[in-house]
Amino acid sequence: MAGPEIERLIQLLARLPGLGPRSARRAALHLLKKKDALLNPLAATLRDVGESVHACSVCGNLDTHDPCAICSDPRRDAGLLCVVESVADLWALERAGVFRGRYHVLGGTLSALDGVGPADLNVDSLISRAQAGGLREVIIATNATVEGQTTAHYITDRLAPSGVQITRLAHGVPVGGELDYLDDGTLGAALKARRPL
Amino acid sequence: MAGPEIERLIQLLARLPGLGPRSARRAALHLLKKKDALLNPLAATLRDVGESVHACSVCGNLDTHDPCAICSDPRRDAGLLCVVESVADLWALERAGVFRGRYHVLGGTLSALDGVGPADLNVDSLISRAQAGGLREVIIATNATVEGQTTAHYITDRLAPSGVQITRLAHGVPVGGELDYLDDGTLGAALKARRPL
Repeated sequence: MAGPEIERLIQLLARLPGLGPRSARRAALHLLKKKDALLNPLAATLRDVGESVHACSVCGNLDTHDPCAICSDPRRDAGLLCVVESVADLWALERAGVFRGRYHVLGGTLSALDGVGPADLNVDSLISRAQAGGLREVIIATNATVEGQTTAHYITDRLAPSGVQITRLAHGVPVGGELDYLDDGTLGAALKARRPL
Repeated sequence: MAGPEIERLIQLLARLPGLGPRSARRAALHLLKKKDALLNPLAATLRDVGESVHACSVCGNLDTHDPCAICSDPRRDAGLLCVVESVADLWALERAGVFRGRYHVLGGTLSALDGVGPADLNVDSLISRAQAGGLREVIIATNATVEGQTTAHYITDRLAPSGVQITRLAHGVPVGGELDYLDDGTLGAALKARRPL
């Protein structure tokens, strides 16, 4: 059907999350139709990003600078550290605009099944940051999954000797959520953590 | 949140069909995580494809050669021409592997609402191909939509003076389809075009 160059483009696009073989074909055709408006800018941007974006050596965030814009921002509270699983989680918190401290990206969660141990995550650098002093509080913001909670417990144990205060995100009813659609675990957690009105 | 380079990548990815802002972010992170395996090859392939792939001057197919591989294949029946709306439709027919003639890509359908007239489609070049002689049959394979059928009628009228035999794809029950889930129009067409068993 299509030539080998187009086939290769389709195969690469199909490896993006959210795109299958069929939607990758549609995307490739769309790119070819809009060469100047989309294909060429995308090729140039990918090359730029590939060359200039690297993981921050302090927190693991992705940025063109090292340390990243967040780590080197003097207006952010250096005493408050939020531990997240991935850069996507860091972006989610930044989008919400509710946190003015700094981050530490673990790069995954502990998972015996997938063979991910502590050495595969950025845990040692987190311990070093806590031992270096200057931290008031470490907020553990791993996901509320089994792996996320396991990782949170492991990090809490490792951080304990440093004496830094350790907190985690609250569990409960999501804002706008209806009780009827919530699972038992969330309802139980929300009830247990009830607060005076 | 992310730097301007990454934001630009996300915005470009979000313009691909099938990707929204959220999945474009996931795709961008996935690309950044797999720089050598995915990001760099994709950037190089996009550049290659952008430079080398053009529309075939005979049929409108996309290929690195002009005339395209299908138009210049001597094993394909030059007397049989299949008229399709888009390159995606051409690819679909090629994937099915059921057609051994050549193609003509219209590049869309007539649409008064969208302001697409005959001059915006590759109709004149189709008429020229029919008048040049050597064609036994033109199969009109536009989609079974209102626009597709309107376009089919228009092309049939324009092709009539050339004296070439004009056919269209059969309408009916799709293979593997269940009657209960079919619309009335398809069922009516299938009944009207019934054939001896």
